[in-house]
Amino acid sequence: MAAAAELPAAVRVREVGPRDGFQNEPEVISTVDKVRLIEQLARTGLRRLEVTSFVRPDVIPQLADAAAVLEAIELPDDVSVSVLVPNERGLDNALAHRDRIHEVNVFLSASETHNRKNVNRSIAESLDGLSRVLERARAEGLRCEGVISTAFGCPYEGWVDPDRVAQIARALADAGAQEVGFGDTTGMANPRQVAELFPQWRAALSDEVELTAHFHNTRGQGLANVVAALQAGCTSFESSFGEMGGCPVPAGATGNIATEDLVSMLEEMGISTGVDLALLLDAAREVQRVLGRPLGSHTLVAGPVDWHRG
Amino acid sequence: MAAAAELPAAVRVREVGPRDGFQNEPEVISTVDKVRLIEQLARTGLRRLEVTSFVRPDVIPQLADAAAVLEAIELPDDVSVSVLVPNERGLDNALAHRDRIHEVNVFLSASETHNRKNVNRSIAESLDGLSRVLERARAEGLRCEGVISTAFGCPYEGWVDPDRVAQIARALADAGAQEVGFGDTTGMANPRQVAELFPQWRAALSDEVELTAHFHNTRGQGLANVVAALQAGCTSFESSFGEMGGCPVPAGATGNIATEDLVSMLEEMGISTGVDLALLLDAAREVQRVLGRPLGSHTLVAGPVDWHRG
Repeated sequence: MAAAAELPAAVRVREVGPRDGFQNEPEVISTVDKVRLIEQLARTGLRRLEVTSFVRPDVIPQLADAAAVLEAIELPDDVSVSVLVPNERGLDNALAHRDRIHEVNVFLSASETHNRKNVNRSIAESLDGLSRVLERARAEGLRCEGVISTAFGCPYEGWVDPDRVAQIARALADAGAQEVGFGDTTGMANPRQVAELFPQWRAALSDEVELTAHFHNTRGQGLANVVAALQAGCTSFESSFGEMGGCPVPAGATGNIATEDLVSMLEEMGISTGVDLALLLDAAREVQRVLGRPLGSHTLVAGPVDWHRG
Repeated sequence: MAAAAELPAAVRVREVGPRDGFQNEPEVISTVDKVRLIEQLARTGLRRLEVTSFVRPDVIPQLADAAAVLEAIELPDDVSVSVLVPNERGLDNALAHRDRIHEVNVFLSASETHNRKNVNRSIAESLDGLSRVLERARAEGLRCEGVISTAFGCPYEGWVDPDRVAQIARALADAGAQEVGFGDTTGMANPRQVAELFPQWRAALSDEVELTAHFHNTRGQGLANVVAALQAGCTSFESSFGEMGGCPVPAGATGNIATEDLVSMLEEMGISTGVDLALLLDAAREVQRVLGRPLGSHTLVAGPVDWHRG
């Protein structure tokens, strides 16, 4: 553990539950519920919200109401709203609501097999298409994040070459991404690996590019990896309230790290997130009620740490 | 994160599921099932097993078969068998099976309220009684661990004075404990706190005393705290297969860190545990079958990381 002074005083947290979480839910959530939950998330202090994705509605029916959600949400001015777009058609659809969004996030995988299964393209084809998306989005004044899935390992291919990941990260940055997210899509990362790779990837990118860690809790190591990333200088994280989301591989696995577990740990460590944990737990309880099933977040069950009893 | 060379090459893991896990199970598990599960755990490579507790059977009916379990288990010679004893009467009952055990573990809380609720004594009264237990157990040639519950915080009192914890640790060591366990009984610890406290406690004890971390995953931070403890030089951990166990406060909270999640993370980090993860997962699946409900371990659901596919 780095000494207290070496850990960051504050981090940025992007809530991806309304996109990454909802898209993995089998039952379609009503637009009204989505809008209410997104507005509730904004009241917790979260200032980066990925609210939906402009994917093909026949592929992900859950997010077919992307335009309706974007037009309906009423959020404070300082909330940065992002949408995920898979390709230029998705960007076209997003740009029809240009005044409602601040950021566009694009994604591809670091392994050919996962990318092929996910978007039916080679990595080179994805990079080619996403470069045009990034160029156009930047021209529209949108902030852009490029997310690299399976950056720490692939459920199909196993080991993923970190140099390959760095090359993809550079290609995304060269195409206009101001932020690169490194996704541990199926929870294969371990803290030593994170400690080794983040500095490598940091060194591969210009100082202006923000590095974001996107961990899953598939094998329970999500927050341990956050600690390793913090120590490696990472100050930007993505998470999902209620520990929703994740990847269908492996089956039954838990999803993204839970935003409430992340916020609880960071605030307990004296690292500011800007988030009111009690309000965030209210939001997680509300999404649990909407989904009608218990969610995997630990702090949702146990409640916040209370140091002042007795 | 410490550089690779600064992390330990190997750690010791004590499996406490047959005691800490089983005692929290509402339905009594048959002696036959307990014996089979303990023997299965021994085949995984685990070399420290806490197999039962000599508590009053009217208080914890689940462990009323402590003597029968001890007499029935057939384990390799290099497995160190420990039992928890609450007091001298418990030690008397354990000593009736002296040839079956290698270690005796005693416990008290670092907070008066938790200790009173747990064993109906003041801390001073507990230390007085446990000193006699430790003296007699050592005279019998048994190895002794003293476990300090609520060492990182108390669900009733909140903040717990680390100096008080150090004093209790010294008192246990002075009375004969060769090992002191620091229990985060209700999952209040965070990695920064662990990083600060382990060196303090290490400095308070003679070099011969082994320090053991006993983390719970109540707020999802269990493995993050393991990483912090590793970095602080701790090389001994306690955990429970299937993430069984824990504390009834707060209600519904998850239990000890799961042995399979701990082993998965450590082995992935290149830190040897001596445990075969596949065999351990078999054991976790078996206890899940015996209990008839899904358990909270992540690796049990997701399976081991596989770097060699593709």
